[in-house]
Amino acid sequence: MRPISRFGVPPLDELPDDVRERIDQVGEKTGFVPNVFLALARRPAEFRAFVAYHDTLMDKESPGLSKADREMVVVATSAANDCTYCVVAHGAILRIRARDPLVADQVASNYRQADISPRQRAMLDFALRVATAPATVEDEHLAELAEHGFDTEDVWDIGAIAAFFAQSNRLAQLMALRPNPEFHLLGRVPRER
Amino acid sequence: MRPISRFGVPPLDELPDDVRERIDQVGEKTGFVPNVFLALARRPAEFRAFVAYHDTLMDKESPGLSKADREMVVVATSAANDCTYCVVAHGAILRIRARDPLVADQVASNYRQADISPRQRAMLDFALRVATAPATVEDEHLAELAEHGFDTEDVWDIGAIAAFFAQSNRLAQLMALRPNPEFHLLGRVPRER
Amino acid sequence: MRPISRFGVPPLDELPDDVRERIDQVGEKTGFVPNVFLALARRPAEFRAFVAYHDTLMDKESPGLSKADREMVVVATSAANDCTYCVVAHGAILRIRARDPLVADQVASNYRQADISPRQRAMLDFALRVATAPATVEDEHLAELAEHGFDTEDVWDIGAIAAFFAQSNRLAQLMALRPNPEFHLLGRVPRER
Amino acid sequence: MRPISRFGVPPLDELPDDVRERIDQVGEKTGFVPNVFLALARRPAEFRAFVAYHDTLMDKESPGLSKADREMVVVATSAANDCTYCVVAHGAILRIRARDPLVADQVASNYRQADISPRQRAMLDFALRVATAPATVEDEHLAELAEHGFDTEDVWDIGAIAAFFAQSNRLAQLMALRPNPEFHLLGRVPRER
Amino acid sequence: MRPISRFGVPPLDELPDDVRERIDQVGEKTGFVPNVFLALARRPAEFRAFVAYHDTLMDKESPGLSKADREMVVVATSAANDCTYCVVAHGAILRIRARDPLVADQVASNYRQADISPRQRAMLDFALRVATAPATVEDEHLAELAEHGFDTEDVWDIGAIAAFFAQSNRLAQLMALRPNPEFHLLGRVPRER
Amino acid sequence: MRPISRFGVPPLDELPDDVRERIDQVGEKTGFVPNVFLALARRPAEFRAFVAYHDTLMDKESPGLSKADREMVVVATSAANDCTYCVVAHGAILRIRARDPLVADQVASNYRQADISPRQRAMLDFALRVATAPATVEDEHLAELAEHGFDTEDVWDIGAIAAFFAQSNRLAQLMALRPNPEFHLLGRVPRER
Repeated sequence: MRPISRFGVPPLDELPDDVRERIDQVGEKTGFVPNVFLALARRPAEFRAFVAYHDTLMDKESPGLSKADREMVVVATSAANDCTYCVVAHGAILRIRARDPLVADQVASNYRQADISPRQRAMLDFALRVATAPATVEDEHLAELAEHGFDTEDVWDIGAIAAFFAQSNRLAQLMALRPNPEFHLLGRVPRER
Repeated sequence: MRPISRFGVPPLDELPDDVRERIDQVGEKTGFVPNVFLALARRPAEFRAFVAYHDTLMDKESPGLSKADREMVVVATSAANDCTYCVVAHGAILRIRARDPLVADQVASNYRQADISPRQRAMLDFALRVATAPATVEDEHLAELAEHGFDTEDVWDIGAIAAFFAQSNRLAQLMALRPNPEFHLLGRVPRER
Repeated sequence: MRPISRFGVPPLDELPDDVRERIDQVGEKTGFVPNVFLALARRPAEFRAFVAYHDTLMDKESPGLSKADREMVVVATSAANDCTYCVVAHGAILRIRARDPLVADQVASNYRQADISPRQRAMLDFALRVATAPATVEDEHLAELAEHGFDTEDVWDIGAIAAFFAQSNRLAQLMALRPNPEFHLLGRVPRER
Repeated sequence: MRPISRFGVPPLDELPDDVRERIDQVGEKTGFVPNVFLALARRPAEFRAFVAYHDTLMDKESPGLSKADREMVVVATSAANDCTYCVVAHGAILRIRARDPLVADQVASNYRQADISPRQRAMLDFALRVATAPATVEDEHLAELAEHGFDTEDVWDIGAIAAFFAQSNRLAQLMALRPNPEFHLLGRVPRER
Repeated sequence: MRPISRFGVPPLDELPDDVRERIDQVGEKTGFVPNVFLALARRPAEFRAFVAYHDTLMDKESPGLSKADREMVVVATSAANDCTYCVVAHGAILRIRARDPLVADQVASNYRQADISPRQRAMLDFALRVATAPATVEDEHLAELAEHGFDTEDVWDIGAIAAFFAQSNRLAQLMALRPNPEFHLLGRVPRER
Repeated sequence: MRPISRFGVPPLDELPDDVRERIDQVGEKTGFVPNVFLALARRPAEFRAFVAYHDTLMDKESPGLSKADREMVVVATSAANDCTYCVVAHGAILRIRARDPLVADQVASNYRQADISPRQRAMLDFALRVATAPATVEDEHLAELAEHGFDTEDVWDIGAIAAFFAQSNRLAQLMALRPNPEFHLLGRVPRER
């Protein structure tokens, strides 16, 4: 079995306090520590910037863009980049946020045939453009989002999430980052089991 | 929620006996009838040819190519084609055949980082070439498989499975074929639960 | 000169009766035995499934889709896959079916500039989508075919032929299947010569 | 049936003398006037430059690069560009120059499986690189040609022919240039018929 | 530092008179001899055809297509081909012709976000199609240019310039042609400095 | 002329103190405020994370990876993404850091023909892989960097810079971010002018 990261994982007790505390915190909330935290902690300054960037884009809920929508952008663009870690980890979060055990697999394999709303479809079309053909983003594509009721802040968020995960996917693939086994099953069976 | 197939599904009692019997048989064995059988039954002659082709390639186990290996070829090439039905359905079968709850998600997202043997890696490299760049298959690629211990029949099988699912993927996408919900969870949790 | 197939060709007298009879039959009808029959006969079960699938899709004529139309789908999609055998062999059949010595070369090199009807153009646009970007097939593309007068069965046929030859092309390229020399000239000169 | 060129063809008697004489000359030699001459004559200065460039590269035979080899470069690169006119017209010339009725169809559909020498294969690999990924041409690729016995002038010629037909293909496609029907059959049957 | 051309540069005094005179002439006009002239002079016949073709397309100004427009086509298509020489050299000429120090860098990196008119945008969309996907040029694309006021001769010119530089780019990349250092700065600062 | 950003730029006096101070600081150092600071300041939390991430990767000099090398990675990967802002702005910084007025244009148009060392070439090959085909990053590619003397931290840096600018490029293209005119000329002429 492959290691968590090509670059190894630092001993927790050698980490700066704020980094270790953040890791403890996510471990308590999730029930395990997602490997991306351990792998990135090898570079505390990058860890801090990454987590700050992530949280300001993802730990947010606006009338136009739910947390589930945001995760859907992550899964669709990460799948386009063939990023195992992000597809598996954020697939789990999407299942939980959307309370839907099927949608993540659908979006990861071919979002064009997923059970999503036309509004979500427009969101993913735009996100995929930012992710895979960013030079072709034009005013008309932002206007299409507006027609589906996304306001300016939503458009920025969709684009910025796609951009941030363009980075995250590449970091995970640079590291050959391994998803925690727990992610594969999360959100697939009712919580009470 | 989308229908099973863009072309609809025929009433079971209007099907020719052999087709209906085959469907009953797979339903008993699997516990549910995979949607591909229902959707293809709309055209009995194609149903028969498809099933015959599938079974002669997939219901076979050779010293060089296990049933799990064969399913791994299906998952990897179907993922390259973004085929939701085949990734989800054969991902389930791969989990069961390989007795591994993680490998299907790994192979579907990026087989280059999956926990597979060098031999399986060579198998998938060849299968992906057949699936996505068939005009570039050359003698040297067959020779590489031989170096990993695959014999001539194995090479034919790997290539023929990739070719057969090039067809299956396209049929499923033509139909927007919907995976049965059961597939998403199959093989992820121990059987006895 | 390269052999007929990388995997060789079995002695005719060692083949199961039904396979040999089918080969004799096509030899009598065509005047020579197309190499695909010889090469596939190495695996009788696959031979039978392949031929059955082929015939149910191709030996059919519907008001909306002539045999020449079907061959045109084969030539256009096989050319997109750079499959020498299928382009040469089905190019010959297209010339004969369409009674046109030029159209196969036009369709094989660039169907967008071929002397075909707008209806055939729509048919090829759809077939090419199934062949080369199947994940992008959406309801609107089926609707476009309907606008050109193709009914539901025609749409299935066009898509299924493109899918079946996605497989055939890959098999031929796996084998480096050699077209019979006769195909290159067939249908180029008036029959009576 | 489509016209010879999207831009039309000028009346022969309105052409400058030298252009008309050149057209007469090629008509006498070939037995018909290839449409590219008629279409380009609309712009006499471009006609002259095009013909001069063509002749200095193609009407040449060196120990390392026969006229048949040169035509083979044209057919392979024009096929990669999906240029109907150049594939059909230069396919005919290749058949004649190589005295081989099959090689043009092989090279046009997939040169990797054509009956050509390793030396010709190396020539086409290089030509295709120039034609389709010119930014990736590196010293090592020129060195590979040298290993196959091509001298510096041959390398220039192979590259320059691929470059010249990158232009020709695009001109022909800009015009939707129609191949003369005669080309389709030329070189396929013995001359004396 | 790399040489001017992989194929070397001939001694000026060994060149035919007309070639040397042309080189002297451009040297006087520009203040230095652009390397493409030196590199191509190695083959006088090709030099003459190339220069003749270039001049008839580029040394022309029509009501619909200024010299700056023509250079813009060169820069945009050469950038799509990643051709260092043509981007740098014609970027300089574009800056001068357009009297704009910024537009060449914009067009070279992403013409979709450049400060150009809708008419120029349509021109570049068409030119890029000819340069990178010539098989897809259809009547409707020529009609779009007409809607922006380009007449038939302009359309030919735009397409022919894109085609000619498809050749030039490939020649420059075959040679690894080095831009003269002067080009990098030309047109970036006011002349009087 | 297009605006600085599709999303507008906030009034400086409405920004949080730390953001405004950072902007003042860079303005003093550079002589003008690069537009990316103004555009991103619209979202202070993202501004802070972006700047922190940027600085920890780029304001660093290690024995194996100079600041000029880091900028070279930015220019090459941003050019592959067709990002006008990053190519122009970081092209300027590269010219300054490398004290070379030509290298940025070379790297931006085709780094394979740039005047760079084999070590820098290996660095860019890896960075481009991370930028454009991240799923294909394998252990062997990291080993190739090690052979050129890059240590583990250098490899992380190269990959992380490519990843960070995958994000930056997409943000800039989402905004249609306009490079400051000053960047186009910076580093092209000796400082004392």
